[in-house]
Amino acid sequence: MSIMVVGSVAFDTIKSQFGERHKILGGAATYFSLAASYFTQVRVVAVVGDDFTPELEAVLTSRGIDVRGIEHAPGKTFHWGGEYGDNLNEAQTKFTDLNVFENFQPRIPDVYRDSDYLFLANIQPVLQKQVRDSMPDVKLVGGDTMNYWINSTRPALMETLKGVDILLINDTEAKMLTGDSSVPRAANKVLEMGPRALVIKHGEYGATIFFKDGSYGTGVKAFRAPALPIEEVFDPTGAGDSFGGGFMGYLASQKQVTREVLKHAMFYGGVMGSFAVERFGPERLQNLTRAEIDERFNLFRSLTHLE
Amino acid sequence: MSIMVVGSVAFDTIKSQFGERHKILGGAATYFSLAASYFTQVRVVAVVGDDFTPELEAVLTSRGIDVRGIEHAPGKTFHWGGEYGDNLNEAQTKFTDLNVFENFQPRIPDVYRDSDYLFLANIQPVLQKQVRDSMPDVKLVGGDTMNYWINSTRPALMETLKGVDILLINDTEAKMLTGDSSVPRAANKVLEMGPRALVIKHGEYGATIFFKDGSYGTGVKAFRAPALPIEEVFDPTGAGDSFGGGFMGYLASQKQVTREVLKHAMFYGGVMGSFAVERFGPERLQNLTRAEIDERFNLFRSLTHLE
Repeated sequence: MSIMVVGSVAFDTIKSQFGERHKILGGAATYFSLAASYFTQVRVVAVVGDDFTPELEAVLTSRGIDVRGIEHAPGKTFHWGGEYGDNLNEAQTKFTDLNVFENFQPRIPDVYRDSDYLFLANIQPVLQKQVRDSMPDVKLVGGDTMNYWINSTRPALMETLKGVDILLINDTEAKMLTGDSSVPRAANKVLEMGPRALVIKHGEYGATIFFKDGSYGTGVKAFRAPALPIEEVFDPTGAGDSFGGGFMGYLASQKQVTREVLKHAMFYGGVMGSFAVERFGPERLQNLTRAEIDERFNLFRSLTHLE
Repeated sequence: MSIMVVGSVAFDTIKSQFGERHKILGGAATYFSLAASYFTQVRVVAVVGDDFTPELEAVLTSRGIDVRGIEHAPGKTFHWGGEYGDNLNEAQTKFTDLNVFENFQPRIPDVYRDSDYLFLANIQPVLQKQVRDSMPDVKLVGGDTMNYWINSTRPALMETLKGVDILLINDTEAKMLTGDSSVPRAANKVLEMGPRALVIKHGEYGATIFFKDGSYGTGVKAFRAPALPIEEVFDPTGAGDSFGGGFMGYLASQKQVTREVLKHAMFYGGVMGSFAVERFGPERLQNLTRAEIDERFNLFRSLTHLE
């Protein structure tokens, strides 16, 4: 089945203890798409500027990703600069040049209209809702957000959440969204805002999915997937979006979404996130094989399973 | 088989968002012993003061714990006061009245000499080493330490670590001990200091065990156990020590210590830690049943296992 993602395609300038990179390919939709492309047909809705070269677009198309929804607007592409200190879980933002992204109005190509799955990457909640409302027939909607929207556009975000089936956020965002310092309590509160399941990403400690009663069948109420203990994290940028791509991509490759399927999706999310951080930018996500992905899946299994 | 633990038996005065308790039973050896008592015969070496009543000692003896190694010294019992804010992973220490614990000289009763396992709870590294050296025939030595000893008595601690088979510490301590901000890299460095395996406790995110090459057979190089997503953490005091008690107690109940057995021990550690935080102090650890423990073990399994 096919999945449509709306979000940023951008340039990143990144510094970590392992070096720096200037204006490399980045953006949530980029990481998401590349990660999801190993599981299903991916379609991107985004905006880039004049400086976005055909070579960069080829990074996506060579993975079979449909880029007809990437608008080329006059001006420069969104450019983010960040630095990682000792705490690789948190980037220090150096600059955010929104450029053409500032006036982004998602335009959905007609050929995308039959998409089965939809992922609303981290953009303005109002735009997320517009896109979601214009795709009433999708089978499942995943979504992301961030502290900035939680603080500055809460009412709009609350409206958006009503249309999101599975929300993927991190610990800090879950606490901020609910005003509750306990992650499990916060999870329950988020599940009252609309989503039928909530994935909370814990960075190097993995991620937990919480299910609303009766959603996606029965079974466990929560499930934890590990992250790989990686000695050399080159660049954590995009780890969460790559998790999202592996998670949603795997879901879209399955006939039905049950709690059992969602448990496996959590593992595939972790797997794709673990690949993403091994190199700067989305480099490692560009030429994986399904065998490498499955091998790492088995490593995740051996890392957590008693038998 | 039997396990001997040396550490603190103390009073705790605790405040969390759920209330406060004045001078309740606490101390690392207390939590450790109670948790381990569900798996094996436990013997305690500690010191208390005149104010330590028979009723308090009965909390231990009623669980079959051997307290003949608890010295009653003139003076007051060690008393710790702490408060938990929003971040339940970290206590703010209000006071530390060492009292009789300040001049603690562990005295090992002759009847303890045949103990099969030894756990060096968090006390002065010099004392840990003395106890360890005086018990040359134990099958396995577990140990704990804390930031204070890492900073102020590093040379002594390094000597102690050479005699510890399995060290149990938390993320912060691992980073501090090695000066490395990456937990997996820090783990490798600790394994070069002596221990054959290292358990790093991640608080609400569970714990990871790292194996030195060739130690405890072959198999996985690391294994992660979850923590339960508990909505109402009443009091995190003693969670780590209860983890240690479940972990070491389970090991001592097995014929052989292999990586497979250690994986199960990680789960039992998490299980006992999860019970400890459900009530103030060690209350919940006083009257569990093995059925309750196994039920929670299965919950941990369903929380992490795909099938």
